[in-house]
Amino acid sequence: MPEYFSEERSVEAVNSRMGQGIDPRLAEVMASLVKHLHAFAKDISLTQEEWELVIGFLTRTGHLCHDERQEFILLSDTLGLSMLVDAINNRRPTGATENTVFGPFHVEGAPVRQMGENISLDGKGESCLFIGRVLDLDGNPIEGARIDVWSDNSDGFYDVQQPDIQPKWNNRGIFITGADGTYSFVGIKPVSYPIPDDGPVGQMLTSLGRHPYRPAHTHYLITASGYQKLVTHTFVGDDPYLQSDTVFGVKSSLIAPFERVDHPTIWRSDFDFVLTPVENRQ
Amino acid sequence: MPEYFSEERSVEAVNSRMGQGIDPRLAEVMASLVKHLHAFAKDISLTQEEWELVIGFLTRTGHLCHDERQEFILLSDTLGLSMLVDAINNRRPTGATENTVFGPFHVEGAPVRQMGENISLDGKGESCLFIGRVLDLDGNPIEGARIDVWSDNSDGFYDVQQPDIQPKWNNRGIFITGADGTYSFVGIKPVSYPIPDDGPVGQMLTSLGRHPYRPAHTHYLITASGYQKLVTHTFVGDDPYLQSDTVFGVKSSLIAPFERVDHPTIWRSDFDFVLTPVENRQ
Repeated sequence: MPEYFSEERSVEAVNSRMGQGIDPRLAEVMASLVKHLHAFAKDISLTQEEWELVIGFLTRTGHLCHDERQEFILLSDTLGLSMLVDAINNRRPTGATENTVFGPFHVEGAPVRQMGENISLDGKGESCLFIGRVLDLDGNPIEGARIDVWSDNSDGFYDVQQPDIQPKWNNRGIFITGADGTYSFVGIKPVSYPIPDDGPVGQMLTSLGRHPYRPAHTHYLITASGYQKLVTHTFVGDDPYLQSDTVFGVKSSLIAPFERVDHPTIWRSDFDFVLTPVENRQ
Repeated sequence: MPEYFSEERSVEAVNSRMGQGIDPRLAEVMASLVKHLHAFAKDISLTQEEWELVIGFLTRTGHLCHDERQEFILLSDTLGLSMLVDAINNRRPTGATENTVFGPFHVEGAPVRQMGENISLDGKGESCLFIGRVLDLDGNPIEGARIDVWSDNSDGFYDVQQPDIQPKWNNRGIFITGADGTYSFVGIKPVSYPIPDDGPVGQMLTSLGRHPYRPAHTHYLITASGYQKLVTHTFVGDDPYLQSDTVFGVKSSLIAPFERVDHPTIWRSDFDFVLTPVENRQ
């Protein structure tokens, strides 16, 4: 008698159905997905009503996704999955700057600026000098490193979230290091902000007793020939949400000093970025 | 120093974030979900590119969901999750008729018919007499059992999938048993059909080397006072897809005989349904 599906052999029943000659990585990923999905349902004895809630939640999440909103990424972020995937794929040696989540607000094509220039084009917020070096693991400066930087404005929005507000490229810029590896630019001391929380993910966070806030941070995408791409933030060290970032992006090594100075700006944040050679991938 | 998110303590980092006083069942379900979701990503070292494929797949799946199409249910069905939830929630004693998936094609309000009536209103397909009894675990007839039956038509479509085609309620009907517990009606020998496979789930099945077919079956929803609701099918025993039902709905106990007879119909399928008392819930 053939063996049909049963509670006991549910995983085997599904995974044995895969055909011959399919992509071996796909087979591996799907077999693991089915194993863990079924283990989840069994561990908590998922009821029919709960299953219906899950179907409805996923459907509403999908319906909210469009060009300017990706609710499934928010779901992944708030469940720690985005940070986990980032961590798995960016293991680095001691001393190298750590990665963190890329986030949905990067835009290609920001203007390349001269060192020291101001990227805060709307004149709002608390001005801050960002300054430091791009180094290799031995502390040598890296020449030609491309620093793509972006942050929110003083109201907690990225420019792409307010496409009708000028000037364009507010709080964005690209800087290329010279032989000494140093960088500097003027931006704003970023502010904490909630992720979009008017959808299913926001409802989930509320149900879980969680807030939707990210602590204040400045985004960096740093690339240099021969080195691993670094996707990271620096965080403002006294932010009240530092220990409860709703997307789990904080690492202690990424908390930067922000010090009040008198001239020429009112804040100053020193941070060195240490890149990892490509051949050092783990 | 506070402990931030890391690959090693990713599950704890997320689950410790839940607030006080939240729904304890929600907390249990979400903690298990995060545990298994992270274990999945770790077990197969999910890459950033694969994660993006998953986000895109879920988004396309959500976009395809509307009043007449539920792609997330198809996804759950084809991953065996729907059958697993059904199994977990409908454990029955030996001798009781087993449950199987409800499916998306049931409609409330089908006409109540007299025993022996014909529910095949379009005159298409191979006529079949369905006949048997509704019994308790001791073999006693159950009076007043409500048998709600539905099947596809000879082209493999349920009437709700072809709303413009008359007559309404084709291959649907409700029958109430009398004191002897017997039922009989004329319908068609059902045919195998593919689940809707022009979306992401169909693409997934193709990538996995799987076909989208369900073996031929007749749906039953049987209720009687004091007994557990029975949601089940009977399957045509010689169907070529019996061992590869794309939603894993087949159980050997649900395979019914379909015998060719001369009069008054060309097929006859005998099947007794055995209901489980409510107090017997496991």
